[in-house]
Amino acid sequence: MLIHLSSWPEIDARLNTTKTVVVPIGSNEQHGPTGLLGTDWLCPEIIAHAAEKQDESLVVAPTFNIGMAQHHLAFAGTISLRPSTFMAAITDWVSSLSRHGFERIYFLNGHGGNVATIEATFAEIYAEWSFVEEQPPFVLKLKNWWDLPGVHSFCTKMFPTGHGMHATPSEIAVTQAAYPELVKTADLDPKIAPVGPIRDALDYRARFPDGRIGSDPLQASPEKGQQIIDVAVPALLRDVADFSAEALP
Amino acid sequence: MLIHLSSWPEIDARLNTTKTVVVPIGSNEQHGPTGLLGTDWLCPEIIAHAAEKQDESLVVAPTFNIGMAQHHLAFAGTISLRPSTFMAAITDWVSSLSRHGFERIYFLNGHGGNVATIEATFAEIYAEWSFVEEQPPFVLKLKNWWDLPGVHSFCTKMFPTGHGMHATPSEIAVTQAAYPELVKTADLDPKIAPVGPIRDALDYRARFPDGRIGSDPLQASPEKGQQIIDVAVPALLRDVADFSAEALP
Amino acid sequence: MLIHLSSWPEIDARLNTTKTVVVPIGSNEQHGPTGLLGTDWLCPEIIAHAAEKQDESLVVAPTFNIGMAQHHLAFAGTISLRPSTFMAAITDWVSSLSRHGFERIYFLNGHGGNVATIEATFAEIYAEWSFVEEQPPFVLKLKNWWDLPGVHSFCTKMFPTGHGMHATPSEIAVTQAAYPELVKTADLDPKIAPVGPIRDALDYRARFPDGRIGSDPLQASPEKGQQIIDVAVPALLRDVADFSAEALP
Amino acid sequence: MLIHLSSWPEIDARLNTTKTVVVPIGSNEQHGPTGLLGTDWLCPEIIAHAAEKQDESLVVAPTFNIGMAQHHLAFAGTISLRPSTFMAAITDWVSSLSRHGFERIYFLNGHGGNVATIEATFAEIYAEWSFVEEQPPFVLKLKNWWDLPGVHSFCTKMFPTGHGMHATPSEIAVTQAAYPELVKTADLDPKIAPVGPIRDALDYRARFPDGRIGSDPLQASPEKGQQIIDVAVPALLRDVADFSAEALP
Amino acid sequence: MLIHLSSWPEIDARLNTTKTVVVPIGSNEQHGPTGLLGTDWLCPEIIAHAAEKQDESLVVAPTFNIGMAQHHLAFAGTISLRPSTFMAAITDWVSSLSRHGFERIYFLNGHGGNVATIEATFAEIYAEWSFVEEQPPFVLKLKNWWDLPGVHSFCTKMFPTGHGMHATPSEIAVTQAAYPELVKTADLDPKIAPVGPIRDALDYRARFPDGRIGSDPLQASPEKGQQIIDVAVPALLRDVADFSAEALP
Amino acid sequence: MLIHLSSWPEIDARLNTTKTVVVPIGSNEQHGPTGLLGTDWLCPEIIAHAAEKQDESLVVAPTFNIGMAQHHLAFAGTISLRPSTFMAAITDWVSSLSRHGFERIYFLNGHGGNVATIEATFAEIYAEWSFVEEQPPFVLKLKNWWDLPGVHSFCTKMFPTGHGMHATPSEIAVTQAAYPELVKTADLDPKIAPVGPIRDALDYRARFPDGRIGSDPLQASPEKGQQIIDVAVPALLRDVADFSAEALP
Repeated sequence: MLIHLSSWPEIDARLNTTKTVVVPIGSNEQHGPTGLLGTDWLCPEIIAHAAEKQDESLVVAPTFNIGMAQHHLAFAGTISLRPSTFMAAITDWVSSLSRHGFERIYFLNGHGGNVATIEATFAEIYAEWSFVEEQPPFVLKLKNWWDLPGVHSFCTKMFPTGHGMHATPSEIAVTQAAYPELVKTADLDPKIAPVGPIRDALDYRARFPDGRIGSDPLQASPEKGQQIIDVAVPALLRDVADFSAEALP
Repeated sequence: MLIHLSSWPEIDARLNTTKTVVVPIGSNEQHGPTGLLGTDWLCPEIIAHAAEKQDESLVVAPTFNIGMAQHHLAFAGTISLRPSTFMAAITDWVSSLSRHGFERIYFLNGHGGNVATIEATFAEIYAEWSFVEEQPPFVLKLKNWWDLPGVHSFCTKMFPTGHGMHATPSEIAVTQAAYPELVKTADLDPKIAPVGPIRDALDYRARFPDGRIGSDPLQASPEKGQQIIDVAVPALLRDVADFSAEALP
Repeated sequence: MLIHLSSWPEIDARLNTTKTVVVPIGSNEQHGPTGLLGTDWLCPEIIAHAAEKQDESLVVAPTFNIGMAQHHLAFAGTISLRPSTFMAAITDWVSSLSRHGFERIYFLNGHGGNVATIEATFAEIYAEWSFVEEQPPFVLKLKNWWDLPGVHSFCTKMFPTGHGMHATPSEIAVTQAAYPELVKTADLDPKIAPVGPIRDALDYRARFPDGRIGSDPLQASPEKGQQIIDVAVPALLRDVADFSAEALP
Repeated sequence: MLIHLSSWPEIDARLNTTKTVVVPIGSNEQHGPTGLLGTDWLCPEIIAHAAEKQDESLVVAPTFNIGMAQHHLAFAGTISLRPSTFMAAITDWVSSLSRHGFERIYFLNGHGGNVATIEATFAEIYAEWSFVEEQPPFVLKLKNWWDLPGVHSFCTKMFPTGHGMHATPSEIAVTQAAYPELVKTADLDPKIAPVGPIRDALDYRARFPDGRIGSDPLQASPEKGQQIIDVAVPALLRDVADFSAEALP
Repeated sequence: MLIHLSSWPEIDARLNTTKTVVVPIGSNEQHGPTGLLGTDWLCPEIIAHAAEKQDESLVVAPTFNIGMAQHHLAFAGTISLRPSTFMAAITDWVSSLSRHGFERIYFLNGHGGNVATIEATFAEIYAEWSFVEEQPPFVLKLKNWWDLPGVHSFCTKMFPTGHGMHATPSEIAVTQAAYPELVKTADLDPKIAPVGPIRDALDYRARFPDGRIGSDPLQASPEKGQQIIDVAVPALLRDVADFSAEALP
Repeated sequence: MLIHLSSWPEIDARLNTTKTVVVPIGSNEQHGPTGLLGTDWLCPEIIAHAAEKQDESLVVAPTFNIGMAQHHLAFAGTISLRPSTFMAAITDWVSSLSRHGFERIYFLNGHGGNVATIEATFAEIYAEWSFVEEQPPFVLKLKNWWDLPGVHSFCTKMFPTGHGMHATPSEIAVTQAAYPELVKTADLDPKIAPVGPIRDALDYRARFPDGRIGSDPLQASPEKGQQIIDVAVPALLRDVADFSAEALP
């Protein structure tokens, strides 16, 4: 059940049987010469929507499509929230979803650069309760889609060299599976991009001139992307089911 | 050109010929017994994407899908930002887009409840420049899709009674045109919903028990929605062109 | 009863019979070559105090004299709050007044540029309650003095041409009625000022070199101002009475 | 020259000869059984306006009428800003006035409870410049009206007992001089109010049941108030002149 | 009992017998050519720890070592919080300590420049309760170590000339008593530093080129510092005991 | 060179030869029945100060002793900043140190729970520069002391079982080496604490009743702590030297 394509009475009814909601969350940022700017929010959306197709009982929120991408701002099309803004927005999503009775809120993340800020946000949200000795009426969970059981090992086996950390063939393949008409190519030099620390936007562009980190995204194909999705979808359904069933102390 | 389905070099190249970007912006909130929760962000997205299909030179950002919907929070599935969060997020979108060279940023809005906060945000952004006697490197414009030239009169002629202000047959028809498989129906009582002031969420639910204000959305149909889109798309293209061409003092 | 000219026991006693308070709110900003910088806060103050003179049971708070005027900052004497500051301050006024038992808080506004931010503030205040399913102990209302029943039509009939939107003959006349010794004149060129969009301060000054928008304020006179006041005062008293009597759902 | 009763060209012209502006700043809060709620903003306004009458070259801003009065909130009619709000608002006033070319901004304060927050605000404003090794284009000064040279000693000689710290006969006398028709009386028990620490609002009300601290305000009279004003006005003019003439390092 | 050198069960047990905690608070900022940058946080730490040595029942929190020092930022080694940051941090310390059951929180301050912001913070914290008519579960107290009964008079008798206001021989002597191996000397010219107003960092450096205000710190010695500590420690123990025993209204 | 035990001219001089500063940063939070509440800030302080003893050219800032510990708030003595406060404070430390010319700021962290917020802060700081296409004048680095080369492997070899994640024998041993007189013992049941997710404070206390996660801290001893320090100190000096020497793109 996709929230944005449902009516409120439908969500209301569904809350009688489930208290869990999945929020695809990512970033709109450069993904090298061939990757879509939307890659990091499209991937969790693609996987979550595919999972919902398989098991309609999964409740999926709209996609949180802009995240923390300050280091990519020297590449056109990147849109970033400041971490403080990102924190406020996630907080409001949680307040809204919790208000309706969702007690387990599962963020399926598509951007490594979001992790620190999302975790800091969870702590900010929990702190409000911790300071006053109260238990929040919800549990929050962050899971990167590539950390779903079995996915990362599958991807690195598929791309033993040139997987890298940004504009990886895995994530680009996932978007190609969903948008096969948008497969792009380019001359990549070097074939496998360099690696290094991530700091501000100008430093990033100087280190990684075409945007990639450690990756050779030309290895991607729609077929490989579909294979990754096919591994990720059941893993997501299991992981969400485990989260929903987890006993609280 | 949809930013999220483009690569950064493609956006970079496009910035040589246009400095204008359209941001569909809306809200995820209840739309009565039959309307989709995503109606208010789907409508500007549908219209902007249709316009981009007609004229690929139009640059469209990802959709800003969560807005100011506090008054709808008593209905399941609604997600709202506090106005202060909304302001911070819009500010970061503007900073990001301006950073790349977009000088005219056009928000195509789908939610009346967003208007005050978006305008307050524009003032907050401009104030930073006004306090120090500098001219910002961008111009901001807000346009509700129903305020595009000719659209509102077309809609009220199509729905002379029961158009109303929330969960209108117009907006629901637009989503039906895009998602005809999702047309929903319900027994509406009264047929035309009541009107009244908008305050907090509990007050809203007490006044408008099924969520509608002044509307009879059962008048909507995919065909009517397509007609509205067909009026809105050229109006949007013209309005954006005028905005791009507007001489600054 | 003017709060600032009363003692606390007097307000305490009055709260036994009324729960409504009127807050004159405006802006301190340029009003063209002849208008007072205080025009936008003086007008609601003048009207509210005149109403209180007629009906001493009206409780009037001190005047909130600085609002959102970033676009006027290129003209000397303008003082503006950022919208975010304005929102925080209005929130604190509401918290204070509500704390004493005022349940209906009526903002009589004198500046069009305040409207968006005041409405966004109402939403920010209500959101705190809406997120937790509670009803706030107060109702907020915003009314521009020129939107009081009958006022705007009276003004435009009085000034059929050159009324305009900023530094209007109406508002300047109202201040002249209260401060007849301060009537100023100037050579205005053009006689009726231009119109156009409102953006940042430098843009504003370039478009509207002497500060006026669409108006010919030389039509104002103390006598005309008094006539406007005489229309506005009973309209305010009725509007406040209606607001006080309004049944909540 | 009162800014709010001037036009922008008049302020513009005045900036050729002076760079100093006086901002009366106070609080709207209970002042015991007989004092006006506006006492703390009326006093600096009365004194500053009287000074401006004597020397029209003095530029006086509108009165900043709501300050930090959280401890008085258990008494009806008190309106308080949170310190953080107060800081934001003062910052915006300074930004606005500085923007026009005022280089010396003199806050004439009427509320002891404002002092800490105003000083913290000055530090917050200066910090922005100090962090980046730049000199701000303005100098800020805070002066309580009773700390103007000669005033406090005059007041304590006039009221050798029962002057106290809140709802003092001095401040009430100043308001009586300006509003002689509003002189109020009450049975005060004890005649001289108790003293003690200032904390939250409920603690305050428990310690100081009628609102006064250490004072016997019944000693006030319009005549005495006028005498205080007559001492304060020339002291203010001298103090502002000294501030304007002060050489910077 | 020093909190940071205790285990949580030890603090838990101690809360059965005391509800008071002492927080040494200061600043890390230049203290002239011979003073330690840590002087302002070392002094309250030295005195509080010495008091705890004498009376182990005193509960002492870790030292809050960075305060409001924007005016010293033109001197290397100074670290300052903006007042707004300082306020947020103090608030969180209070929330944390109160959460455990500490009902009386005593800030022993070592930096005059902190006073305004700490007091503003107390008001900000109290305001949260005052706006809703509730009594906070804690009482806050600020005491500068030199304002402990008898200390200031002792210091000024010890240093009748050249005590001054910053980099005073008193505070430097206290640090010398604790760190006798770090006694530094320098040629001071003038022997007694100038005095003047405190504004931003560049203004400060121009007025007070070596950082001192009004002081001759070369008068300090470890022995004199120990004498001051010997006066301050019993005064602190008494003052804390009085605070703990103070009856609330 | 410890900043807080130096004078400003000493730091000024040192800035001629080094632009790097080490900031020990941690948390004050429960560390099980036997660990000191200060463990997480004492460990990086102990290691950094020991390193400075070996190589006096190392510049060490005061210790940032309160971090993000909301999950420990159900245990007495814990003091936590909200993440948003923590971010503001780190930002101000960076602004201050950068202001003096420190270009490489190295945070030596002692608390795993700090990592997300510190990284989010770095992004918040960088974002300010990234939005405007400027290179910040500093580089920020976060290193947990146990992640210094060789340290973690040394610790897990020393404690092959019961090392765990919180109140580890490693960190407790380090504090015991520095404070051997404070070695505490307790009956631990179970000997090795459970593991699980970290959420809010009440959830944490229910899962981990005595505060430990996965650890048997009774294995700690002062001698083992000294061995860890002896591994960490040269690793820190090398890591800081590498950071100082790193070429920027």
